[in-house]
Amino acid sequence: MKVEVLQDILSANDGIARRNQNLLDEHGILTINIMSSPGAGKTSLILQTISRLKQKAGIGVIEGDVASTVDANKVHEQGVAVVQINTAGGCHLEANMIENALNNLPLEDIDLLLIENVGNLICPAEFALGEHKRVMLLSLPEGDDKPYKYPLMFIEADVVLINKVDLLPYLEFNISAFHKAVIGLNSAAKILQVSCKTGEGLEDWFSWLLDEIGKMKKGSIGTKSGT
Amino acid sequence: MKVEVLQDILSANDGIARRNQNLLDEHGILTINIMSSPGAGKTSLILQTISRLKQKAGIGVIEGDVASTVDANKVHEQGVAVVQINTAGGCHLEANMIENALNNLPLEDIDLLLIENVGNLICPAEFALGEHKRVMLLSLPEGDDKPYKYPLMFIEADVVLINKVDLLPYLEFNISAFHKAVIGLNSAAKILQVSCKTGEGLEDWFSWLLDEIGKMKKGSIGTKSGT
Repeated sequence: MKVEVLQDILSANDGIARRNQNLLDEHGILTINIMSSPGAGKTSLILQTISRLKQKAGIGVIEGDVASTVDANKVHEQGVAVVQINTAGGCHLEANMIENALNNLPLEDIDLLLIENVGNLICPAEFALGEHKRVMLLSLPEGDDKPYKYPLMFIEADVVLINKVDLLPYLEFNISAFHKAVIGLNSAAKILQVSCKTGEGLEDWFSWLLDEIGKMKKGSIGTKSGT
Repeated sequence: MKVEVLQDILSANDGIARRNQNLLDEHGILTINIMSSPGAGKTSLILQTISRLKQKAGIGVIEGDVASTVDANKVHEQGVAVVQINTAGGCHLEANMIENALNNLPLEDIDLLLIENVGNLICPAEFALGEHKRVMLLSLPEGDDKPYKYPLMFIEADVVLINKVDLLPYLEFNISAFHKAVIGLNSAAKILQVSCKTGEGLEDWFSWLLDEIGKMKKGSIGTKSGT
């Protein structure tokens, strides 16, 4: 019974997500759904990306949080168009929230739309938003066993960023065991080691993004779902 | 419509939670619901607690995870009764899962039951399980802004443990700003700074637990909900 209700919700969500993606495709906007646990570094990644790429691409941001506008304020200070979604208790973004947010963004000025999902390693992976690529951050302090405990997030990700690598000397985190666990779930995942604090490793992330923006402009972007 | 469905689910859950609490009261079992983000240190806290208190109290553990038995295996190695719940995608424990787990624990041998909830800073705070006290961990790497973004968890907690204080020299985390934010939401919260890795600060946690076990035995335990 509860499973049926969930399937209805997911199927309605997928319909809106497809509509969102069509709209984004029409405007040639590469859209990235960024997911992680609370405090893994999603906002820091977005701020680093704005700082490095805003001369090369029009950037827009949608911030998802249960409450507060803490993150949207930080993005706004960078002079980038941003919409804050507060889910009022909801543990993930859904496609209809994104549809509303898109109505409030200057789509004609945007080449790259970064969506910061609610901090949660579980439910966000179940809800398509209309994005072209899914990126997840796993920060080192969370531990190398997370793929075993939260498999769907790792299965759904196009890119897995291992963040906070500057803390590696102070933690017990087995990078190669983590790689092996991720690849076991998702052999196509691109895995990058970065520090959004020091900037280490981020050039690979920026190159990947610029490549994907280029594909989007040529109309040759691929998505995992094949839509 | 969706709100009504949620209310029905929560009210059914509360009924089962009360039944669980009655059963736990009959057996004089102090029950703690431990909540946090993924990788904040719930299992490490449980292992430290077992190691320090197992000579003084009978301990039982219920492990909640989306998938895997990684944590239950670690607890089992300590010679403590443990039940693993896998939620198969569910982002929080519910009272009926605990009811089933209680049927599989030797209640007559247990003074202290530690429930490790699914790693999630949002939904676990909405679902009573039958516990007497709610404890949440916030690990330093998650950042000091979490009370603003995830208020319910901080409002519901009896004890807030600031974990991984051994990493303080390497992070920007304003302890006094964090205290102020928590107290602003929940003036009765007990806040402790600990490191489950080095053991720093854990004596205060153990003392609190032993006090509460004592109150339980005398039948004078209080709960936030007043049940």
